[in-house]
Order: sequence, then C-alpha cells, then structure tokens
Amino acid sequence: MFRTTFTVTSEREGDIINITPEVKKAVRDSTIHEGIIHLFVQHSTAALTTIEFEPGVVADLKRALSLLAPDDADYAHHLRWDDGNGRSHVKAALVGPSITIPVASGDLMCGTWQQVVLLELDVRAGRERTVICTVIGK
Amino acid sequence: MFRTTFTVTSEREGDIINITPEVKKAVRDSTIHEGIIHLFVQHSTAALTTIEFEPGVVADLKRALSLLAPDDADYAHHLRWDDGNGRSHVKAALVGPSITIPVASGDLMCGTWQQVVLLELDVRAGRERTVICTVIGK
Amino acid sequence: MFRTTFTVTSEREGDIINITPEVKKAVRDSTIHEGIIHLFVQHSTAALTTIEFEPGVVADLKRALSLLAPDDADYAHHLRWDDGNGRSHVKAALVGPSITIPVASGDLMCGTWQQVVLLELDVRAGRERTVICTVIGK
Repeated sequence: MFRTTFTVTSEREGDIINITPEVKKAVRDSTIHEGIIHLFVQHSTAALTTIEFEPGVVADLKRALSLLAPDDADYAHHLRWDDGNGRSHVKAALVGPSITIPVASGDLMCGTWQQVVLLELDVRAGRERTVICTVIGK
Repeated sequence: MFRTTFTVTSEREGDIINITPEVKKAVRDSTIHEGIIHLFVQHSTAALTTIEFEPGVVADLKRALSLLAPDDADYAHHLRWDDGNGRSHVKAALVGPSITIPVASGDLMCGTWQQVVLLELDVRAGRERTVICTVIGK
Repeated sequence: MFRTTFTVTSEREGDIINITPEVKKAVRDSTIHEGIIHLFVQHSTAALTTIEFEPGVVADLKRALSLLAPDDADYAHHLRWDDGNGRSHVKAALVGPSITIPVASGDLMCGTWQQVVLLELDVRAGRERTVICTVIGK
C-alpha cells in the first residue's frame, strides 16, 4: 500500500480539471504495478469522476449539473449559513467524492477517451483542493 | 483486512442519516491504521454518499433527488409490482450503494465538513439497513 | 489480488445489462473468499451501478437519465466532434465508471434485489464493452 496526496487550485465555479497526469504520477511513485488506485477529494463542494476531457463534454456536464441544482433555486443551506453554495453541496453529493481505477503495468487502465477529473463546484473561486491517493497492489 | 457490519433504522422516506460515528467505530475496531474503508449498503432503495451534514444541505439534496425522480411521475416499476417505490430505485441507482474513504492514523481522512451519510430512499418507513464495512490496510 | 476482464456486447442506446453472473464468475475464478471486488468499465459512454434488475426499474432509470441529459438538447460536444453522443458522456460521468462490492464466502454480498448492471449510454449500437475486475482479499 502506498499513500500520497496532491493539490489542485481551481479558478472558478464549474471548473472541471483534468487530474490524470497527477494520478499517473501517484501510480508511478508508488512503484506498484498491479492493483488499484483509490482517489478521494477531501471537500464537500468538489467531486471526482471520469470523462472524455474536451471542452464540449466539459460544457455539457456543467449544464447537466445546473439542471440538478439550479443557480436560482432557493436553498435551505443559504438560510442557515448564508454562504450561497447550496447548489455546490448538492452537486458534490450526487457525483461523489471518490473513484477507484485499476492499475496494470504501473499505469492507469483507463480507456483512450477516459480522463480523471476534479469538479470544482463551489461558488467561491481559487480554492486549493486536496486529493488523497491510495495505491493497493504489488 | 477486516470486515464488520452495522445497521441503521430509518424513520421515513428521504431520511439522510449521518453514519460517520459508526464508520469511525468500524475503523477503530479494525485496528488498521493506514488504508481504506469500503462501505456498501446492501439494499436497492438506499444509497451512500458524503455531505456537509446540516439540515439545510440535507433538505436541498432531498429536493434535487425529487427532480431526478418526481413523486408524481408514472413508474413502470409500479405497473409490474405495485409497490410504489419506483422513485426509490431510480434515486438509489443514480447515487450508488458504495463509497470508499481513506484511513490514516486509525481515522477517516474526511474533510471537516464532510460526513458519511446513508440515504433512505424507500417509500416505506422504519426500515433496518445493513452497511457492510471492509477495512483494507495495515 | 486477482485480475480478470470480461466483455459484454450491447444492442442499443439505453441498454441496461445485468452483469451479475460475470461478476460472480470473476469472484469464483479468483478463489478469494473474503474481500472486495472492484469493477471498472473502460469507456467514457458507459457506466456501472446496482439496481433491482426488472424491466420496470430499468425503464424508469432510463427515463431519469434522459431528464439529466435530454435527447433534444444542444450539446457542445456535437459542435466540436459531430458524433452526436453528448448526452452519453454526460450520463456516464454522472453515474460513474466504477463500483466496488464486498465479497464473503467466495460470493458477492449484494442484497436479494440488488444486481450489478452495465449501462450502455452511447447512441451507437452494438458496442463491445470491457469491464475490468480486481478482486482483493484472501
């Protein structure tokens, strides 16, 4: 088992950041050849998934998330905390904070059009996000 | 590797139950210090995720799930089985039954505002839900 | 640790395929009795989850996914690549490519009404989909 973390800094709400290079580096650093890598984003207004990382898909995914949690809805979270990020929490809970990817020959077993991405869902910009990587195998 | 299970009893549809204490206990009981804990809810009308566990976010997430699977839609599941929980199955399949969280120093590596929750999505109240915990590490 | 893969061939967009038999076979082939099995679909327009596999729930889940990413929406992905599967990418990113299930006594610890399914989300029919299985345990 090998553990490492990395951080990414987002610029604005809705950023979908390709973290595949950082994840591949974590696998290399682990020197584990066969196994899995588990990723976990340690925040309640960010999420992890895989997509074909190209601007069209990125824009389409942002729009779909806005259908789930519209900008202009009334959020109960706001009434309590007045921090305006109710939609961020809803989107993050639905997409989820973790993903696990198989590792073979010391590399990710993703498809050609399948990149690992971090979704910055908070309304406040410029946040540093921590991703915890755990590689298990041999 | 360590395996344990716990149960939680829901009161009504839409309950979002903070299971972080039970999950932390499972990690402690495992005596594993560094690794991961995998959680799996053994039912097709419940789900697991992480949220900031405060009543506002809980209410907002419930509403978002109702957009995905409205109470008053016509469900094909009902026509076949007449048990009225078509929306429960849809929500559960979209959120998913499992989550994996990193473990360090014998504790969960969650963010400060990030709690582990079980979503009771069934229309029938008072159900006992089994969560299977598998801790892997050393 | 044990690694195997299997493929399933879909017929049309929206197919929800019960892969529980293949997943159970992977567990048996691993000869691992206690642990977890991680599943990963190596494509950006397919996804994995669990449902009660009966035609009603299958139809209801398809409809919910179409609310998230309607057939007739304008997708930025189409403008760039003209391959017409913007909705497929959005649905796949939201459901996710991976799932992990506990293993005990050499079998899946799923609930009675809880089957493992592959969602074929691409608009092009007849695709062969690869699922990577990693069994960890003893």
